[in-house]
Amino acid sequence: MSIRPSLDQIGVSAGKKARLYRILHQHGLRNGTAIFLPYDHGLEHGPRDFSDNPEASDPAYIIRLALEGGFNGIALQIGLAEKFYWDYAGEVPLVLKLNGKTEIPSSTDPLSPLNATVEDAVRLGADAVGYTLYVGSPAQERDFAQYLRVREDAERFGMPLIVWSYPRGSAIDAKGGRDSFYAVDYAARTASELGAELVKVNFPQPDKQSGVPDAYRGDFSSQEAIDRVVRSASRTLLLVSGGEQAGDEVMLDKARQSMEAGATGLIFGRNIFKRGHDESLRLVSQLKEILAKYPC
Amino acid sequence: MSIRPSLDQIGVSAGKKARLYRILHQHGLRNGTAIFLPYDHGLEHGPRDFSDNPEASDPAYIIRLALEGGFNGIALQIGLAEKFYWDYAGEVPLVLKLNGKTEIPSSTDPLSPLNATVEDAVRLGADAVGYTLYVGSPAQERDFAQYLRVREDAERFGMPLIVWSYPRGSAIDAKGGRDSFYAVDYAARTASELGAELVKVNFPQPDKQSGVPDAYRGDFSSQEAIDRVVRSASRTLLLVSGGEQAGDEVMLDKARQSMEAGATGLIFGRNIFKRGHDESLRLVSQLKEILAKYPC
Amino acid sequence: MSIRPSLDQIGVSAGKKARLYRILHQHGLRNGTAIFLPYDHGLEHGPRDFSDNPEASDPAYIIRLALEGGFNGIALQIGLAEKFYWDYAGEVPLVLKLNGKTEIPSSTDPLSPLNATVEDAVRLGADAVGYTLYVGSPAQERDFAQYLRVREDAERFGMPLIVWSYPRGSAIDAKGGRDSFYAVDYAARTASELGAELVKVNFPQPDKQSGVPDAYRGDFSSQEAIDRVVRSASRTLLLVSGGEQAGDEVMLDKARQSMEAGATGLIFGRNIFKRGHDESLRLVSQLKEILAKYPC
Amino acid sequence: MSIRPSLDQIGVSAGKKARLYRILHQHGLRNGTAIFLPYDHGLEHGPRDFSDNPEASDPAYIIRLALEGGFNGIALQIGLAEKFYWDYAGEVPLVLKLNGKTEIPSSTDPLSPLNATVEDAVRLGADAVGYTLYVGSPAQERDFAQYLRVREDAERFGMPLIVWSYPRGSAIDAKGGRDSFYAVDYAARTASELGAELVKVNFPQPDKQSGVPDAYRGDFSSQEAIDRVVRSASRTLLLVSGGEQAGDEVMLDKARQSMEAGATGLIFGRNIFKRGHDESLRLVSQLKEILAKYPC
Amino acid sequence: MSIRPSLDQIGVSAGKKARLYRILHQHGLRNGTAIFLPYDHGLEHGPRDFSDNPEASDPAYIIRLALEGGFNGIALQIGLAEKFYWDYAGEVPLVLKLNGKTEIPSSTDPLSPLNATVEDAVRLGADAVGYTLYVGSPAQERDFAQYLRVREDAERFGMPLIVWSYPRGSAIDAKGGRDSFYAVDYAARTASELGAELVKVNFPQPDKQSGVPDAYRGDFSSQEAIDRVVRSASRTLLLVSGGEQAGDEVMLDKARQSMEAGATGLIFGRNIFKRGHDESLRLVSQLKEILAKYPC
Repeated sequence: MSIRPSLDQIGVSAGKKARLYRILHQHGLRNGTAIFLPYDHGLEHGPRDFSDNPEASDPAYIIRLALEGGFNGIALQIGLAEKFYWDYAGEVPLVLKLNGKTEIPSSTDPLSPLNATVEDAVRLGADAVGYTLYVGSPAQERDFAQYLRVREDAERFGMPLIVWSYPRGSAIDAKGGRDSFYAVDYAARTASELGAELVKVNFPQPDKQSGVPDAYRGDFSSQEAIDRVVRSASRTLLLVSGGEQAGDEVMLDKARQSMEAGATGLIFGRNIFKRGHDESLRLVSQLKEILAKYPC
Repeated sequence: MSIRPSLDQIGVSAGKKARLYRILHQHGLRNGTAIFLPYDHGLEHGPRDFSDNPEASDPAYIIRLALEGGFNGIALQIGLAEKFYWDYAGEVPLVLKLNGKTEIPSSTDPLSPLNATVEDAVRLGADAVGYTLYVGSPAQERDFAQYLRVREDAERFGMPLIVWSYPRGSAIDAKGGRDSFYAVDYAARTASELGAELVKVNFPQPDKQSGVPDAYRGDFSSQEAIDRVVRSASRTLLLVSGGEQAGDEVMLDKARQSMEAGATGLIFGRNIFKRGHDESLRLVSQLKEILAKYPC
Repeated sequence: MSIRPSLDQIGVSAGKKARLYRILHQHGLRNGTAIFLPYDHGLEHGPRDFSDNPEASDPAYIIRLALEGGFNGIALQIGLAEKFYWDYAGEVPLVLKLNGKTEIPSSTDPLSPLNATVEDAVRLGADAVGYTLYVGSPAQERDFAQYLRVREDAERFGMPLIVWSYPRGSAIDAKGGRDSFYAVDYAARTASELGAELVKVNFPQPDKQSGVPDAYRGDFSSQEAIDRVVRSASRTLLLVSGGEQAGDEVMLDKARQSMEAGATGLIFGRNIFKRGHDESLRLVSQLKEILAKYPC
Repeated sequence: MSIRPSLDQIGVSAGKKARLYRILHQHGLRNGTAIFLPYDHGLEHGPRDFSDNPEASDPAYIIRLALEGGFNGIALQIGLAEKFYWDYAGEVPLVLKLNGKTEIPSSTDPLSPLNATVEDAVRLGADAVGYTLYVGSPAQERDFAQYLRVREDAERFGMPLIVWSYPRGSAIDAKGGRDSFYAVDYAARTASELGAELVKVNFPQPDKQSGVPDAYRGDFSSQEAIDRVVRSASRTLLLVSGGEQAGDEVMLDKARQSMEAGATGLIFGRNIFKRGHDESLRLVSQLKEILAKYPC
Repeated sequence: MSIRPSLDQIGVSAGKKARLYRILHQHGLRNGTAIFLPYDHGLEHGPRDFSDNPEASDPAYIIRLALEGGFNGIALQIGLAEKFYWDYAGEVPLVLKLNGKTEIPSSTDPLSPLNATVEDAVRLGADAVGYTLYVGSPAQERDFAQYLRVREDAERFGMPLIVWSYPRGSAIDAKGGRDSFYAVDYAARTASELGAELVKVNFPQPDKQSGVPDAYRGDFSSQEAIDRVVRSASRTLLLVSGGEQAGDEVMLDKARQSMEAGATGLIFGRNIFKRGHDESLRLVSQLKEILAKYPC
């Protein structure tokens, strides 16, 4: 029995439900789980992320990979969506990523500025929008202000909202760091309190305890940590990120633990496309074997 | 004879009066007093606030607690309201909290950014909105600006406005601190001058006198202090907060003194839900015994 | 077991549900049924409707009657709501009637023009809005156009929409008349198709068959007719109107048959207030005895 | 012959003239002079300003004082206007003060944020709006921006605009201070250049010469100074403030010199209400004796 | 076979395609390539840029030069466009440059503020708008925010958007500098991710490696570098800038390499107009000889 909330239980409007149903039950394994392919690295990190596999710099290659791998959605920035989604429109759900930034200037008080709107997403036939919220950033005041506009528009248009909930900034660095159990748990809850339908988090690392509040000190297993993160997200569906490239076994383990905890799915970018084409598909099929065990 | 102003005496429009009547006379003790359950701790403090009573991390548990305890309203952020209020819509009044922030970055010049609107509150069937005003913050300029929009919308829609009037920031720290009689008195007055219908304050501590103006130096009893705070709020109804957890007897004493002074009611969060279910209800019933003595 | 749909089953948003819950479960018998008191006769028919009971020309008298009788709501035009509702704001739910007309010019192609907005209703603290739709009128094109704006606003603000679904106009007169089973059945369905949460209809008269389509020719009992009207309304809650004054026994019979068929309640105006004060309350209590048998 | 400009000579629209006529010729002495009672101290200084005369913390007491003393207007912030003006609406002109701030944080670059709009003033039946402009503040860029919106709205609604023209901030402190002849003269001119109908200034102190421009160095009598300030304000009507409490004789002298110079009137708050009720009225009548000598 | 994308392959709306067709196929060589004459130096560098050829300070001279040289478009700021374009309206396409700044204040966190809108461009009959994006600037948050408005308006009006994608600011200086292969490659990709139709970049210098990421360290030829930049821009058409004046042979070489890599064209300003009239035209014809070899 899965503790994952179903679409009937998360209080969404008809439009949001219709689009989420499309993503979760008419693509991928069609069993209520999801694996997403995010592709905003050209903006966030620059083309250097494509040097291991130069093919990956071509957005058309990536969209085809999403189709071949049977992903539940692909996340693109507005420019690539405008230029490349038409060719495959409707074949794989589009998640329009609404904000983003280059990594060039430093980020002690990071904010990810909007470069597209929910109305763009409607116009392009997207099934969800993505927003990066830098939880704990000293710039949270401006972040919440621009997030409010996005949430309102998403509500108005019945567009599901996926929050990339990333602990970041100088205060987070001083309190356990971005992957600490404390930071990830707070990030999941923040997205839920602010009204996301899905939240993307990194896998929590309970051993990062330097500077965290007392409640997060102690001997937590990683399963206990991800269990609690799912609980904190309550009716917000949880996606676990692959994060920076790690060994495959570690990744598969985290994926298993996440789904066991009640996550809805995975969102893996660099871990997929930095390897060659066939290797990418092999990894995807291993991840989908895990997802297949958690229908709802 | 209570000095508490009745709904006929506070200059509100029909819509505000209808909604306040609902809160004060059709829920709780139905005698014009109120006890509210605020539940924004997941955003303000993070999930760590739920570690004493893990059940409390589940919003559905909290809403049920509000129903079982016969509260006059529950205060939620937009995300939880969207996902959890539907199940109990109308059974307990909703106070939509319009702003909030994480505690992660430091707050020498705190501001609580908006993440929802009065129109959201109307749409969700809420009976009031809540706004945190950081009185005395160096950021008061931006705070007043966003508050103005909220007040105007609340006026337009006939939606009662509850101001969480919190003295905060470096200047307050230097002038007696957030709970000093001076700070609480000024906070109550500020909310009244700016047009709130209800104001939530902490119980004043007249012995905190370091750095306060002359008028607040002297030997005031806590009853004298809360009496004057009610007077400063004039026709703005006063709610006294439980604040950080203290011993039960101390809390009950403060509640008694507040009601005696002419407060309209109480707003208790962590003091309620951090203990187990039955203990929570026991405390609520003790508080309601006090409220029962002050009908109007 | 009632076939009446509950609030969980009619696909409404949180705000609409909260307001309907208030009407159906926190006023009147608090059992999911409703009896409404409409009072727009001063506009629709002119003061002549008050000649039998001159007290009835005073809106304050009528609102007090609604309170004394324990009605679930009172329906007023904007002017009376502005001037009289404040005194009783929140004590009895307000249904703001958004359109209306005088009976002075003839009505072969009737249309009931808007004189208030959903935002007025929000501002006044109303729990529902009412709209008269003249089903079958040659003016239906303009009627649908103004109805669309009302429905959109009601959706945006989470305000329940009650459609007074009245067959009217020359075409209806030629096809069985306004109370024919055919006309009432079509009217109930039209309101449902167009998105009302509640629909007010007259009790159908299956013997009026001159000019009706074949499907409505035959020997239908009045119970069969009202059963089918409820089915046609599907998830739109049905209110049956008292219509023009008839004998009390006939009215009580119709009320019984309506509730048996799955109606949610009754909406009685002239039948109530044209008699003296005590007689009014006596009739109300007879009607509520019937409603008490149909909790849900 | 007074050098004070009459209402015919100051280029105002019909709406502004009608409202100013009401203030200057239908209240107070009805002779074109004015004495205003400002009451925003609860926000600007906090309740400590009411400790000398606790009755003064009650807005109703103050409004009654304005009526008994025959003032030409009372200036309130939005909250008190909403809650207390209704009882006396129309009996004494309301000046809605549109901006204000607490004194808690320091003010090297002060700005007084808006908390109400000209439309609020229209809605409440006010006859003027008040705006505090911190002349010379490093924040003047933001100040002018929000002032622009106020002036535009005041123009659109025919609402007279009274500028509280206060030299403030670090640059002013370095150039003679807030009450220097230089600062007050510049402040009067700034309000005139920016389109106020009335300007409130402190009485200039020509002996404060440290850091002022050469033109303000020299041996000026206080009469010469206030003469020049009236000239700088040109067709903007001048109100002289009582400022911080001084001896009564000094105040009466300043009032005499101001009226002699061509001021339109006085605006006295703390000097009035900090003393007991009868003392307040006695001082008011002394001030009005002066005003009576300057009809126009 | 050119790898340059044609207008059919870049996902543009009808309005954008029509205007780009006009630029690429109805002006210049009419073969799908382009050479633009930008003339915003009077704002960006001040009149000092015209000292080598004083005639160049006259906008009319420059527009005539664009006509004589058969350019595909001329880029002007709003003021010159308003005053000078009318005389030649339609004869040469106008690219309205929407933002710009003086070089007077220093630029560690540069931002180019808007001074015109897409609607201005529509009104003036322009065929494209230009926007300077300072990639990597610490001010990118505000830059992206104003860019978003431009992109949305451009989308709404079907107006092609050319991004001057300029790496700038302290972080860029520390990571290889503005012309490094790393910086130019990231700049091209950023414009593509953010939805430009054309992107103007400087020619990359692969030997600038101090501080660049590992992927950009190594022995790259300039042809390899520009090849990869074109790939990073993917379906965003690439324009290579002449940049600061270099020797003619170097410039012609860069132009050849750019076109070979799949660039759409060139954008040369100072290199053209700083020399005398006939010399200018001679250089243009050499550049067009290169473009003539790359029809599509």
